[in-house]
Amino acid sequence: MPELRKDPIIDRWVIISTERGKRPTDFVYEPDVVKGGFCPFDPGNEHTTPPELFALRDPGTEPNTSGWRLRVVNNKFPALLMKPDDQLNRQGEGMFDKMDGIGTHEVIIETPDHHATLSSISIESFMDVLGAYRERMVTLAQDPRFKYVLIFKNWGKAAGASLEHTHSQLIGLPIVPELVQEELSGSKFYHKWKERCVFCDMIRQELQQGIRIVLENQEFVALCPFAPRSPFEVWILPKFHHSSYMELTQESCRLLAEIFSATLKRLEKSIGKAPYNFILHTAPLREPDLPHYHWHFELMPKLTLMAGFEWGSGFYINPTPPEDAAQYLREAQL
Amino acid sequence: MPELRKDPIIDRWVIISTERGKRPTDFVYEPDVVKGGFCPFDPGNEHTTPPELFALRDPGTEPNTSGWRLRVVNNKFPALLMKPDDQLNRQGEGMFDKMDGIGTHEVIIETPDHHATLSSISIESFMDVLGAYRERMVTLAQDPRFKYVLIFKNWGKAAGASLEHTHSQLIGLPIVPELVQEELSGSKFYHKWKERCVFCDMIRQELQQGIRIVLENQEFVALCPFAPRSPFEVWILPKFHHSSYMELTQESCRLLAEIFSATLKRLEKSIGKAPYNFILHTAPLREPDLPHYHWHFELMPKLTLMAGFEWGSGFYINPTPPEDAAQYLREAQL
Repeated sequence: MPELRKDPIIDRWVIISTERGKRPTDFVYEPDVVKGGFCPFDPGNEHTTPPELFALRDPGTEPNTSGWRLRVVNNKFPALLMKPDDQLNRQGEGMFDKMDGIGTHEVIIETPDHHATLSSISIESFMDVLGAYRERMVTLAQDPRFKYVLIFKNWGKAAGASLEHTHSQLIGLPIVPELVQEELSGSKFYHKWKERCVFCDMIRQELQQGIRIVLENQEFVALCPFAPRSPFEVWILPKFHHSSYMELTQESCRLLAEIFSATLKRLEKSIGKAPYNFILHTAPLREPDLPHYHWHFELMPKLTLMAGFEWGSGFYINPTPPEDAAQYLREAQL
Repeated sequence: MPELRKDPIIDRWVIISTERGKRPTDFVYEPDVVKGGFCPFDPGNEHTTPPELFALRDPGTEPNTSGWRLRVVNNKFPALLMKPDDQLNRQGEGMFDKMDGIGTHEVIIETPDHHATLSSISIESFMDVLGAYRERMVTLAQDPRFKYVLIFKNWGKAAGASLEHTHSQLIGLPIVPELVQEELSGSKFYHKWKERCVFCDMIRQELQQGIRIVLENQEFVALCPFAPRSPFEVWILPKFHHSSYMELTQESCRLLAEIFSATLKRLEKSIGKAPYNFILHTAPLREPDLPHYHWHFELMPKLTLMAGFEWGSGFYINPTPPEDAAQYLREAQL
């Protein structure tokens, strides 16, 4: 019997379609087409990107030259732009509402190695990436025009990456986006009722049940959520309550890099180099410590399509129960 | 400057990214792979599908044999299933909520012609398809287990179609899905405030402005919505207030088939045989005439990808302003 499951935080249902029950080898996805030719993210091509906003560099090297481990630059084709007068310019057009699309759109070039992936780089390099996310977030939080910083990665063409060279993206927004607001209000509602953080409760139950756990270390847990939108969806959460990613310490950063890297390696063992998206979910900038919110990463391999049913209902059909996915990932031979 | 636009009915924002401003010829999509070999929807293969639930047939032909113009059968790989005791069995698993995935999942085989498409069939055949949607909806409405019937079409592999032979799908649900509820409550809120239907107001403003209109006839209008999720998104709406598709008369059905067919032809002229999804938005079954809701079709070509930013924010990035798309569609030489 297929099962309808509700996400514990927001009002999102998924259909776990057990009749279609898919094993890792059942998934077929487009292999990423390796685009040859010029790559603006390769060392030596620094002058072809917008100037760097942040970089981790060898001592003595100049900005926008070689000698870097990681660079952050503006996106050359930004979805949002800053204007000098920084006004949202909310206005109507008859009954319709619009505002200027102001914001910032940055690219985090994770490594100089064109052929590396997040699953192949060292723990130290992974820490550079996770540290850069935090660094940019702390910097942008000082600009009162930004209310939210959304950090995400599209890996593989089918997941929306237009360049092969591994990179993440950051969008700074003048408003808190709708899905984040839903999460905030869902978790606030739960907190009002139980006086506990819904994420803390979820982690507690998951660790006790064990069936959806992928990995765990002193500070973090990687699990397949109860109501996943996609097969092999994995969330990585701090085990202790923290609402903002900006609270991440250097010591925690190593543990996070370790569990994140190990999760990606296990995913690759199970479903191959499938395209994926991950998104950092964190509290809005300058929100004081929230008792109801809990930062985390959500990673979704791109193994199914969003089609008419999903567009019309808001439900997702997932052919792999998370209990099965977690077991495959736990048992993956590295 | 990119523009943030809000859907007038629900809380959904899109970024109209004018900097990336895309013309029809800028879109590249995977051409549909024509799968050779056996097709269960071809005439002569009726025995390979589940038995027909409804069909339009030549006089004197037997069910589940050749001689049909249109057939409706159960999906062989249903996302939801009916159970004899028809209970939702809502239950908890600790803090989590789940229920049985009960429902029905049908396929509407639109034509016996394997190589036809909705844009190539005659107006009479198109009327058969639109009539079959209504017919199944009316039949399923008599079963008290169903609260909502979702009708949609996935055309092309990238839009989720797994068979080439043109077909639509129907899912009967024991609950009203989340996105429909959002639309219902958004339009109810507007109605409470203005005492007018938000869709009627939108149609009025659009017809007056003209810039987003694609086509119009006595009873229907095809337009590019103000805040479209995808480039060349088109909505087809009755100009007069009707909340349920079940109210469609035979006479209106012809006018709907005409505008729908002409819209698909214009889309094909502008963006080629791009994959698309369309969804019929209609009131829940057995809801009395709703003053705030207005049935319509929403058609979305699959020209962009849902990636990390969309997954994280709930915003959509659309590189083609609807005003441009509507102009291309109006000016398409047929």
